[in-house]
Amino acid sequence: MIVVMKKDAGEAEVEAVCARVVEFGLQTHLSRGLERTIIGLIGDERPVSWDMLSRMEGVEKVLRVLPAFKLASRDFKPDDTVIPINGIRIGGTKVVVMAGPCAVEDRAQMREVAQVLCESGVRVMRGGAFKPRTSPYSFQGLGAAGLSLLAEVAQEFGLATVTEVVSAEDVPLVASHADVLQVGARNMQNYALLHAVGDSGKPVLLKRGMMSTVEEWLMSAEYILSHGNYQVMLCERGIRTFETYTRNTFDINAIPLLKGLTHLPVIGDPSHGTGKWDLVGAVGRAAVAAGADGLIVEVHPHPSRALSDGAQSLKPESFVRLMDELRAVAQAVGRDL
Amino acid sequence: MIVVMKKDAGEAEVEAVCARVVEFGLQTHLSRGLERTIIGLIGDERPVSWDMLSRMEGVEKVLRVLPAFKLASRDFKPDDTVIPINGIRIGGTKVVVMAGPCAVEDRAQMREVAQVLCESGVRVMRGGAFKPRTSPYSFQGLGAAGLSLLAEVAQEFGLATVTEVVSAEDVPLVASHADVLQVGARNMQNYALLHAVGDSGKPVLLKRGMMSTVEEWLMSAEYILSHGNYQVMLCERGIRTFETYTRNTFDINAIPLLKGLTHLPVIGDPSHGTGKWDLVGAVGRAAVAAGADGLIVEVHPHPSRALSDGAQSLKPESFVRLMDELRAVAQAVGRDL
Amino acid sequence: MIVVMKKDAGEAEVEAVCARVVEFGLQTHLSRGLERTIIGLIGDERPVSWDMLSRMEGVEKVLRVLPAFKLASRDFKPDDTVIPINGIRIGGTKVVVMAGPCAVEDRAQMREVAQVLCESGVRVMRGGAFKPRTSPYSFQGLGAAGLSLLAEVAQEFGLATVTEVVSAEDVPLVASHADVLQVGARNMQNYALLHAVGDSGKPVLLKRGMMSTVEEWLMSAEYILSHGNYQVMLCERGIRTFETYTRNTFDINAIPLLKGLTHLPVIGDPSHGTGKWDLVGAVGRAAVAAGADGLIVEVHPHPSRALSDGAQSLKPESFVRLMDELRAVAQAVGRDL
Amino acid sequence: MIVVMKKDAGEAEVEAVCARVVEFGLQTHLSRGLERTIIGLIGDERPVSWDMLSRMEGVEKVLRVLPAFKLASRDFKPDDTVIPINGIRIGGTKVVVMAGPCAVEDRAQMREVAQVLCESGVRVMRGGAFKPRTSPYSFQGLGAAGLSLLAEVAQEFGLATVTEVVSAEDVPLVASHADVLQVGARNMQNYALLHAVGDSGKPVLLKRGMMSTVEEWLMSAEYILSHGNYQVMLCERGIRTFETYTRNTFDINAIPLLKGLTHLPVIGDPSHGTGKWDLVGAVGRAAVAAGADGLIVEVHPHPSRALSDGAQSLKPESFVRLMDELRAVAQAVGRDL
Repeated sequence: MIVVMKKDAGEAEVEAVCARVVEFGLQTHLSRGLERTIIGLIGDERPVSWDMLSRMEGVEKVLRVLPAFKLASRDFKPDDTVIPINGIRIGGTKVVVMAGPCAVEDRAQMREVAQVLCESGVRVMRGGAFKPRTSPYSFQGLGAAGLSLLAEVAQEFGLATVTEVVSAEDVPLVASHADVLQVGARNMQNYALLHAVGDSGKPVLLKRGMMSTVEEWLMSAEYILSHGNYQVMLCERGIRTFETYTRNTFDINAIPLLKGLTHLPVIGDPSHGTGKWDLVGAVGRAAVAAGADGLIVEVHPHPSRALSDGAQSLKPESFVRLMDELRAVAQAVGRDL
Repeated sequence: MIVVMKKDAGEAEVEAVCARVVEFGLQTHLSRGLERTIIGLIGDERPVSWDMLSRMEGVEKVLRVLPAFKLASRDFKPDDTVIPINGIRIGGTKVVVMAGPCAVEDRAQMREVAQVLCESGVRVMRGGAFKPRTSPYSFQGLGAAGLSLLAEVAQEFGLATVTEVVSAEDVPLVASHADVLQVGARNMQNYALLHAVGDSGKPVLLKRGMMSTVEEWLMSAEYILSHGNYQVMLCERGIRTFETYTRNTFDINAIPLLKGLTHLPVIGDPSHGTGKWDLVGAVGRAAVAAGADGLIVEVHPHPSRALSDGAQSLKPESFVRLMDELRAVAQAVGRDL
Repeated sequence: MIVVMKKDAGEAEVEAVCARVVEFGLQTHLSRGLERTIIGLIGDERPVSWDMLSRMEGVEKVLRVLPAFKLASRDFKPDDTVIPINGIRIGGTKVVVMAGPCAVEDRAQMREVAQVLCESGVRVMRGGAFKPRTSPYSFQGLGAAGLSLLAEVAQEFGLATVTEVVSAEDVPLVASHADVLQVGARNMQNYALLHAVGDSGKPVLLKRGMMSTVEEWLMSAEYILSHGNYQVMLCERGIRTFETYTRNTFDINAIPLLKGLTHLPVIGDPSHGTGKWDLVGAVGRAAVAAGADGLIVEVHPHPSRALSDGAQSLKPESFVRLMDELRAVAQAVGRDL
Repeated sequence: MIVVMKKDAGEAEVEAVCARVVEFGLQTHLSRGLERTIIGLIGDERPVSWDMLSRMEGVEKVLRVLPAFKLASRDFKPDDTVIPINGIRIGGTKVVVMAGPCAVEDRAQMREVAQVLCESGVRVMRGGAFKPRTSPYSFQGLGAAGLSLLAEVAQEFGLATVTEVVSAEDVPLVASHADVLQVGARNMQNYALLHAVGDSGKPVLLKRGMMSTVEEWLMSAEYILSHGNYQVMLCERGIRTFETYTRNTFDINAIPLLKGLTHLPVIGDPSHGTGKWDLVGAVGRAAVAAGADGLIVEVHPHPSRALSDGAQSLKPESFVRLMDELRAVAQAVGRDL
């Protein structure tokens, strides 16, 4: 951290800042420029409050030098984290595709999807039982019954499962039914939930909040990691921008950026990232080309009858075609599907 | 809702869409233009899924005509909702100021603030016991002990209280200590929490998510209202934009916009809306001039020692001065403080 | 400027950066922390390229300490700049209202507006002759004929004028007809135009780009100031955000922020800032309460027949009412209209 | 266009709107729902002003049904536009890479780059002579001398050229030196410039404004097309969002979206789209995987000595490697380099 003093800051003000820094157990290093005096902090900055320093007399601003996340950083753990699930390894050399409907609706739907997944080599099925919806008048998911249905169909077909959990108190229930716990975009900063999935010891798919910076996202991962649970996948699912043609703007930059900043696997969600089924294939291919370790894709046997997210769901035949395209792109970048 | 068919959509596709609309219990109205056929829906649209229609063959897009919120709208309830708390009326002719520290820290701090509030005519004290923080290494609030402290000091000084609740399971505890339950920006779409505060029957201060549209915000209010709890205040606290000088961009437009769209009281939070104490006064005055029914302001006896949000907290003397300025502006727009 | 070296940067890399800084004529100051070595630059940083330093071996990032603008800053010129026009002083104690139609259409319209302005004490009339429009199929303004019409009507009523200039080559023509040259939001970074209005010696109303940070905006002002022309007003007209209810989001924070950063007068444009006539009054009052030195407001005798921006134009009777409201708010914040 | 009347709109108001629509030469179609009356417009809507209708009494809002662009749309011209330059075809089956330094600096630099391009099969060289820079203190380009240098070196190596033109009056000069005229992001809505490049008859590379919607971008293309010049390439170069780790957010969704909406070729600029050289490769591969018809990439022999944009420029050896990677991805999606 670096404290930039105001042009007219006096010696007493500089000294007061230094004294405060020492209170926090750090050392200071002064640099007097032509226009400003600058105070550098030396030591572990985590206990230091940026806020407090910025409100001291004579301080113009406080700049951070190191990122705020630690356990999630490559500095801390240089080698890639690999998460084993159902005989596959997320974060390894193969690109992993997870797919299924937005919401679990009924057994026939789930079996139809599971069949398609098996035929195209997918090993992880998604399906929501607890659905956070903008409107109280929309379908809210089947809840516990949906979890059971998902687990039963998955077992029948030998698939692993990923499903969303929306509150800390539901974590044990969801953890007893699913292989991967999804924390949704709206809950990326629901800290009670982050603590709970951290404690669960289960793999977690942490979606980026639609309004969250990459750093905030990594800080949310840090909450989970701080419980000793390192099985965290980061899922880019599009951010909110001014563009209205698409539901979200898929932040393709975030994929290589994260691969540099963190050891955690990075997953792309082109379904939410675009909101339009006819853009899903292109953006899914792009995510793989950019280095994503996996994708999560919405597939529904009858999108125009889906109770949720039909507009961005692929039909089975489109999904099968996409798998072939993804394989070709994965191989072009030195990986496989 | 209006369904716009593709240029080359055939008669069978138009008929299929009409049939689906009828399935939902509505009627249709066809309009054939030079370039497109358009299908209007007539009836209560809430059960209709926009998604499903948009995925039918031949459909180009689906436009909404009515807003998605209902109970929160002025169409539904034309007269202003007024919320009585501690002998004051939020949403009435007077502008109500709520103030206090970001976080409850200790009794001395709270008593010092309470004293200032009383002297400047403030009747509602804020103070956080459960603090959602971006970093797991930051101060997370005193929890239950903080709630008790807040309640005790408030009672001693005859103040009402507003404090944040961050999870559904904490609602009974917080509701037994505070007069107003705050739902924070990060939890605006935590639906379990919205249901719980709806059930509590307590007044709710619903902060806008930092990247939530006005419509999404009103839909979150709708969750609470749908429990029969109409005591909801909407608190504008700044949205996230590309500007980096300020922590958030206070959306001043939202104030008159909401006063037109909804009957619920509108509160401004210039502390979070700017993130800088030296902008709080100007933006607070602006919010009152724009028609806000109240403000919530962070005040701390020693901002440079505050455990949270010191950078945006006013010192007592600045707050007292602000109260005078706010009174003058309130009177200029035909209200009072 | 501060150069943060990578964790594993070697001595030779640190020395190379220092040598490069010295090449630019500055001195360096080293600080070796536990995790990073940091190099501070001492001297006039303007010739130094941030880009170059950031691409040197071993560099993690480069942080700026001082703002990039200089002539526009309060550091450089502490006292407020006041711009005299037509017997009034923009940036002085009085709040100045400029008003008129979006586009000059015909003499009757202009005379009708001019009459209203005179009756409500307004001394500066706006009106566009060159209209930048998103669509080539929209009305593009009357051009030179519109300029003459504006000037004639203004002279008849004793008003000063402000009108937009959209290209460098038009500056002499526009400068010979109008008192204030407006640089529109789409042209805020049209540097040829900025140089030309800088050379003109005329007062300039510089609108913020809808996508521009406050710093970029001040850098655009810096272009004009660097020609010795200090008669620049900064006009906040709303920025683009994700919110769709309103055309733009009026950045109320920018007003007090600018009053701290720069000596230049700050004007608010609630018409473009909201895009909706029924929000203009509230946001105009807010801008004055926040400390704006003036407003620019669209008024049209018949908004539903306006060739441009009818949706955000006030009718004469609403404008007259607004003037009274603005006067009350101005007085409440210690100024006058 | 569809006019939605207010809930309480009277018959006279509905009739007035219909009469106004008829004035514009269109027909109307009425639909009376339970909550609102809706008026559909039938006929060519381009002369109709959305603004005017929205300001009529009793009107709640006006919705557009058709996109505002016409000549640029696939509806108007279903087959892909192919632009022949220097023996290559942009918009055809091959993916075209254009590369070179941000700014033309001197002959040695340009020859060094040209050599690299030739060796890796690139046929179009970029290089800026007129540089729009945020700061007046930054290098502004060599101007006319830079144009000559670019043209000479290009001729020597048998390359075509693309270079930016920043004002309408420079178009003839630039057009006499370069094969493709680039309109930069800051000038996407500089209409005088759009008219001029439209008139020039030269191929145009139209960059997206950093905060422009896809529709606004296509409307800017429409300006050029309306001059009969159909040789327009659309270049996605990243949009501005709240994310600060990267300079811009490359909108990967825009690539497949545009391929559906328009017949014009789509180019990706991963250099500006990320602002960081170490992300350029991944995002470039992604753009090709998503269907881009070409890329434009910044390459500099010595990025840490580049006078502009060094931070996002590739070194020659990285560029050569990228070309191989791009070829593999292009082939994976059924194209070639």
